[in-house]
Amino acid sequence: MSITAPAGFRAAGVAAGLKASGGRDVALVVNDGPRRTAAAVLTTNRVQAAPVVWTRQAVSDGAARAVVLNSGGANACTGPEGFADTHRTAEHVAAVLSSGASTPDDEVGAGDVLVCSTGLIGIRLDLEALLGGVDAAAGSLAADGGADAAHAIMTTDTVAKTAVAERDGWTVGGMAKGAGMLAPGLATMLSVITTDAVVDPAVADAALRAATRTTFDRVDSDGCMSTNDTVILLASGASGVETGLEELTAAITEVTASLARQLVADAEGASHDIAVTVRNATTEDAALACARAVTRSNLFKAAVFGNDPNWGRVLAAVGTVPPEVAPFDPLTLDVSVNGVQVCRAGGVGEPRELVDLAADREVHVEVDLHAGDAEVTVWTNDLTHDYVHENSAYSS
Amino acid sequence: MSITAPAGFRAAGVAAGLKASGGRDVALVVNDGPRRTAAAVLTTNRVQAAPVVWTRQAVSDGAARAVVLNSGGANACTGPEGFADTHRTAEHVAAVLSSGASTPDDEVGAGDVLVCSTGLIGIRLDLEALLGGVDAAAGSLAADGGADAAHAIMTTDTVAKTAVAERDGWTVGGMAKGAGMLAPGLATMLSVITTDAVVDPAVADAALRAATRTTFDRVDSDGCMSTNDTVILLASGASGVETGLEELTAAITEVTASLARQLVADAEGASHDIAVTVRNATTEDAALACARAVTRSNLFKAAVFGNDPNWGRVLAAVGTVPPEVAPFDPLTLDVSVNGVQVCRAGGVGEPRELVDLAADREVHVEVDLHAGDAEVTVWTNDLTHDYVHENSAYSS
Repeated sequence: MSITAPAGFRAAGVAAGLKASGGRDVALVVNDGPRRTAAAVLTTNRVQAAPVVWTRQAVSDGAARAVVLNSGGANACTGPEGFADTHRTAEHVAAVLSSGASTPDDEVGAGDVLVCSTGLIGIRLDLEALLGGVDAAAGSLAADGGADAAHAIMTTDTVAKTAVAERDGWTVGGMAKGAGMLAPGLATMLSVITTDAVVDPAVADAALRAATRTTFDRVDSDGCMSTNDTVILLASGASGVETGLEELTAAITEVTASLARQLVADAEGASHDIAVTVRNATTEDAALACARAVTRSNLFKAAVFGNDPNWGRVLAAVGTVPPEVAPFDPLTLDVSVNGVQVCRAGGVGEPRELVDLAADREVHVEVDLHAGDAEVTVWTNDLTHDYVHENSAYSS
Repeated sequence: MSITAPAGFRAAGVAAGLKASGGRDVALVVNDGPRRTAAAVLTTNRVQAAPVVWTRQAVSDGAARAVVLNSGGANACTGPEGFADTHRTAEHVAAVLSSGASTPDDEVGAGDVLVCSTGLIGIRLDLEALLGGVDAAAGSLAADGGADAAHAIMTTDTVAKTAVAERDGWTVGGMAKGAGMLAPGLATMLSVITTDAVVDPAVADAALRAATRTTFDRVDSDGCMSTNDTVILLASGASGVETGLEELTAAITEVTASLARQLVADAEGASHDIAVTVRNATTEDAALACARAVTRSNLFKAAVFGNDPNWGRVLAAVGTVPPEVAPFDPLTLDVSVNGVQVCRAGGVGEPRELVDLAADREVHVEVDLHAGDAEVTVWTNDLTHDYVHENSAYSS
């Protein structure tokens, strides 16, 4: 069900011929209201794909009627022609959705349609195929179409990612794609979150940003940030239940946390999911900087692939964070790997042989800075032969 | 010859049993004067190995008589005991070198001895073996011992790295080790540079820093900075020729540039050496930030391993640099790979099929920011199966 779990939404996912595999590659999500509240968090990369530029503008009024998403092409670095393709896609969706309109209020404008694309950079989309896919998707929109839509946005993903959070009288649903290039500030990752709660646009925006900050922004597969990352929230109000910022944030966070964890678990070529927790930092930003230094250390990530609890590489990574960002005394650092304190006070702790990394896919690294009381966890993956293979053999 | 090319130096490299391979693992370099000028550039990592802490203090007076270096153990994260080991090593070198002293001026103190270590973090050194190696090295010091010393500091290096710059009446020689973990702010890299020029300590320090900034600091194999990085300059004055800052910097830069290029060429598991040049930036710092963003992109480096000139990944990497660091308009970016302009004005340029990456080990990527006139080149390597293998199968 995913995005169609909340009331007021229809979705579809069809095969339009954009993906060489012939699989589903165009998804359409329609908010039937009564409200059309929308918010979006978009990549902070300065090189932004055409659909990101379009969606930023289209969502700025806090409202949207539909989202069209395609895999099989990112429409990034495609110049003015690429932007025209996105514009034409939105116009086509608007026309198709308006064709059955019985009142002026049912008319959909291009500015009510958000657009997401994912796939290879620097290649124009096959617009004819895409527009044909929009027609087919519009024709198969269904109140239980969430699963098909989730499949249509997959690229190198091996499984579709969906999640639902049930509340008293209202629901949040979500879908996401992404199996690599996950990075802070978002990743090559598309996600649509839906809710039937009655939500003010400003509250929707704040809740989505808060949930993204502590979930999607804290998975970092390979430190690379993409040109297309987009997280969209649509709220239909169909439940009639009003929610406040706090409860909405909590429900969205439940969904995005689940989706983020699924993204890590399906990261390209990974054999371990690694949670790096930094404790007792002076601030959340300090903890985050130290955690990210570890999650971006190729040497540490390669060691985990070799089932080696190499705490020296953890220390070497944490030691690159400037003191003004994260004050700590290197001679007090403790490091535990899967509960074994292999480093104590910056030196040798328990024998590393006590750590068994081969037994589980999950690895938990904990770094204690002894400097304050802030704590952050960032998820990443190990660096494997398969990661290199997937990212060298295939363009993306 | 390398470090013994300039007059006034003797060196040796012996096998002391620290390396499991049984190869040479202890090097000794002695400056016989008449001057004992010294300078050092040390890792900026906050987690610093015992020999780094020792050497920073010992060189602070601008003078040193000898450098002792060992492979087979980094003596990092080894606590007060590890520092005591370094201290005792320096004392032992001083005692051995003083044993033949005929005048008080020939007496060597522990503070005249700089220490470097490289190898696994978090393991105490076999001090008895190391001190035995010092005795053996002192007994085999020779005016042509540079090659043996260069071999004794190798870890995963496949070849010894040496370089010489000849000037009118004076010479600069150098050796370096390092085959991975090369990163800005230095790397798991040890280097000793010697000269027989007559040099003021302040000039020696300034020249070494300037040469390091534009050479060693601009190779970045995997973005990881080590706890032990050390570059040492010793000046004997034996040529009797006085040099100024500019000519000394130029000669040292010639040596360190050659050594840096050799380090990249021997990087662990690499199949391509990649020069990323960023042109027409507003400042050198802006160009450097953009170049480093590219050299740290695992996705781009994996693409090069696959001989794929994936300019989209170059743009995505450059796009992560904040505008306040490097002002540029993403819609004006040009990217060339081996002279083919595959990206023009942020969009598609020449066909990527025109680029042949399989033919050469060297790859030249050029990014034009169209924002100013500063230019920087940073060298890195591709991300390969062998990199993952070497850094997962072996601790370091």
